[in-house]
Amino acid sequence: MNIKDIDSNIKKIAVIGGSAIQENCDIYDMAFEVGRSIAVKDAALVCGGLSGVMEAACRGAKEAGGLTIGILPSTAEKDANAWVDIRIPTGLGYARNALVVLSSHAVIAIDGAEGTLSEIGYAITFGKPLIGLNTWQIKPYEEIPSPLIRYADTPEKAVEMAMSSIS
Amino acid sequence: MNIKDIDSNIKKIAVIGGSAIQENCDIYDMAFEVGRSIAVKDAALVCGGLSGVMEAACRGAKEAGGLTIGILPSTAEKDANAWVDIRIPTGLGYARNALVVLSSHAVIAIDGAEGTLSEIGYAITFGKPLIGLNTWQIKPYEEIPSPLIRYADTPEKAVEMAMSSIS
Amino acid sequence: MNIKDIDSNIKKIAVIGGSAIQENCDIYDMAFEVGRSIAVKDAALVCGGLSGVMEAACRGAKEAGGLTIGILPSTAEKDANAWVDIRIPTGLGYARNALVVLSSHAVIAIDGAEGTLSEIGYAITFGKPLIGLNTWQIKPYEEIPSPLIRYADTPEKAVEMAMSSIS
Amino acid sequence: MNIKDIDSNIKKIAVIGGSAIQENCDIYDMAFEVGRSIAVKDAALVCGGLSGVMEAACRGAKEAGGLTIGILPSTAEKDANAWVDIRIPTGLGYARNALVVLSSHAVIAIDGAEGTLSEIGYAITFGKPLIGLNTWQIKPYEEIPSPLIRYADTPEKAVEMAMSSIS
Repeated sequence: MNIKDIDSNIKKIAVIGGSAIQENCDIYDMAFEVGRSIAVKDAALVCGGLSGVMEAACRGAKEAGGLTIGILPSTAEKDANAWVDIRIPTGLGYARNALVVLSSHAVIAIDGAEGTLSEIGYAITFGKPLIGLNTWQIKPYEEIPSPLIRYADTPEKAVEMAMSSIS
Repeated sequence: MNIKDIDSNIKKIAVIGGSAIQENCDIYDMAFEVGRSIAVKDAALVCGGLSGVMEAACRGAKEAGGLTIGILPSTAEKDANAWVDIRIPTGLGYARNALVVLSSHAVIAIDGAEGTLSEIGYAITFGKPLIGLNTWQIKPYEEIPSPLIRYADTPEKAVEMAMSSIS
Repeated sequence: MNIKDIDSNIKKIAVIGGSAIQENCDIYDMAFEVGRSIAVKDAALVCGGLSGVMEAACRGAKEAGGLTIGILPSTAEKDANAWVDIRIPTGLGYARNALVVLSSHAVIAIDGAEGTLSEIGYAITFGKPLIGLNTWQIKPYEEIPSPLIRYADTPEKAVEMAMSSIS
Repeated sequence: MNIKDIDSNIKKIAVIGGSAIQENCDIYDMAFEVGRSIAVKDAALVCGGLSGVMEAACRGAKEAGGLTIGILPSTAEKDANAWVDIRIPTGLGYARNALVVLSSHAVIAIDGAEGTLSEIGYAITFGKPLIGLNTWQIKPYEEIPSPLIRYADTPEKAVEMAMSSIS
């Protein structure tokens, strides 16, 4: 990827998921593969910039030469994981969850801490295509015509579904 | 209630729910009763300040002489429904959902538009007791020991559960 | 003041100023008098909820039986000074400065830490009447027809100017 | 510039200034030159993403092959000017001014609408080096040891001062 490709036409996929996931677990590997697949498809990765799922996805994206954007809850760039290229400290705490979703064209939810549920809510609120991978199951009170989350079986499939939803 | 009761010890219950609910439907009546019960128990009502569930709850609270606080998405006080006493325009859009939850001691979710799901996510994130009334069903990927939402059958029961969770 | 007066017609005056001011200094006394005068005029006091100028103004307002609203940078109600009635924890850090200004009808700037300057900027941006008391002097690059801040000599005069600007 | 240079070590300079400035005026040309100089020095440009000073600076940066980041007040990417590479819609309105400053290592203020003053306040609050070019003059109430803004005579000089303040 060349600087010329980093323009306003770049597709941006948000990866949302908890910060408490450790290395060498299935979820971490899954998030890494999601990040790698996003970069392979020449899309940029947007995330909350911290550890766990966010870190794993950024590592995967950087291994494949991609671009990573981290929208941080704190005011300090140093709170970003080491694989975030563009660090956006917000100082907004969890209210920054809205921005992670708004800055993307589609959202992939992995696993799911509590914060992830608010991001899922925002993805639905802002009408972003939302793909789930081992994540929250949600059901509104009344029947609705189309699913709010479409679930994927594999990281590659999740990225494929996200990319095709915005092409 | 007297001005002397409006001090930092006042209990604040957030009522979250969609703005599209019309008057004279079951959900509107339910939200009205929740608002009324909150005021009867000398607690203040916090909400997003708009129409639908928020308006119904504010009307109920005011009918019982309560205090209502509306944390608005826009910058304009006039966007508040007519039953909001303390209007807090934020200009933050849906990011203000975090503030509705943070400004309360317990949260009652009624029905549920998309935005409500982000508020449910925030209630869980910030550790606020969360009572559901005809609202979203959510299930994390892994089994967890305690329920994230406790569901109530009636408005009065919902307020009772909310109040007892913070006393 | 009675609960019936705390409705959507209540006038709200923001008092902005630094948190580092100590008790028993001139600025603290000045802020106390501003808060007292606001309450005497049946207006509510809005501030950032912390120590220093904010605390002094809240104390003054409560001594005169007024209502105080504190829009806090943190997520914790306990960070409010003891004279804040309605505590709004935002978790937004200094971005909450926009909300302090938006939640008021007129703004009184006292002394002035760095954060105060951003609030002065917001007051001008949002078109709120702005009264200065021993505070920042600012001058735009080009000449403008009307003053952006009107300066007052005494606390009482500042409140009088603020109230008459919104009546 | 290559994608490999767009990493967490990239220097980011914020350019703040009003959106109402038209093309073909001195201020527009000045902002264009500031943007160009930032790119020439291999730094990324951060701004509010809109028209006027922001657009001019982005155009200058893109002409010199630089990277531009726009932190937008609205929720819509389309509100960005055509020279923004990385568009961050926030939906926060003017509260996003805090983020423009937080996402940079140094700040250059040009001309100055009202919003610019709040950003100047944030630059001082967050301790970012602040360079002024035909912009607000500000003076705190009490004498302070070092200047809060250092003023530059030319766009090139402003960028040089900004860059040397963070090297």
